[in-house]
Amino acid sequence: MAFYILKIPPKEVEELARRIEEVQKFIKPCSLCNNFSTEEICSLCASPKREKDVICVVEEPKDILAIEKTGQYDGLYYCLLGSISPMEGIDGEDLNIHKLVKRVASGEIKEIIISTDPDNDGELTAQFLIQKLSVYKVKIYRLAIGIPLGTQIEYIDSATLGKALMDRKPVS
Amino acid sequence: MAFYILKIPPKEVEELARRIEEVQKFIKPCSLCNNFSTEEICSLCASPKREKDVICVVEEPKDILAIEKTGQYDGLYYCLLGSISPMEGIDGEDLNIHKLVKRVASGEIKEIIISTDPDNDGELTAQFLIQKLSVYKVKIYRLAIGIPLGTQIEYIDSATLGKALMDRKPVS
Repeated sequence: MAFYILKIPPKEVEELARRIEEVQKFIKPCSLCNNFSTEEICSLCASPKREKDVICVVEEPKDILAIEKTGQYDGLYYCLLGSISPMEGIDGEDLNIHKLVKRVASGEIKEIIISTDPDNDGELTAQFLIQKLSVYKVKIYRLAIGIPLGTQIEYIDSATLGKALMDRKPVS
Repeated sequence: MAFYILKIPPKEVEELARRIEEVQKFIKPCSLCNNFSTEEICSLCASPKREKDVICVVEEPKDILAIEKTGQYDGLYYCLLGSISPMEGIDGEDLNIHKLVKRVASGEIKEIIISTDPDNDGELTAQFLIQKLSVYKVKIYRLAIGIPLGTQIEYIDSATLGKALMDRKPVS
């Protein structure tokens, strides 16, 4: 980045500096889903085109970008802004889930898709969410664990390959 | 390997050369599953501990090693020794499936788990197998496609993440 700044015209440097300051001034968490937004409510929560009774729960706003890029999802999101992490002393009670629980409790949500990372912290977070949300009338799903597309069986780690075998899908 | 050979004692070089010759002489495809074997029938096919009515179909013997390492499978294998590959001019009719089809047709097999690679050639091969085998009374499964364990959502390719969303698993 330093080399890039040294190379661009002074006008662009000023513009860049101004924009960097603006980022923190004008971009705040969406009051509904915690995604980054320039408005009180983000464009995804406000969109009339999204299904309003499905919520995909992610750890960070960048996960929303990754899921949007798939083009396979047209529901809403809820961003935890973190995950349970025993290593960092963050437990379930520290998680930002109050707004989510309130919406699920109100009965307006039919389906929750837990899309926390498939690592230890993400799995702990998923288990905590399942425990908190399964008392309400809502269907809870987890992203499929399995072998990723475009790879070869021999290079897949044993834990994932074992899970892909256990979760094998009927095709006939 | 050249550096290793230059360094070891002459006796070990002779031993290595002899073993390399033996590999092709004594190791042949198992007459049942095509896995490498020193006997007419490999130790997996011969084992009384394996379930005899489940067959996991793989492309190469090294895939058998990968699946055995998971410790999650106790059925038999069938090795295609290749896959359909339009780029290399290999189509379904070139595939080594006659012994497999015969066993499925005999009614002795309850379940087939197609474990070809999750890439283009492996997918074509899987579709061909499904078409050939679904005329018989056998349950056919495919390894689960999804996000691999230990990764993070933001680094998973869109195609895999999209498939993991579509194949989401109910947890409540």
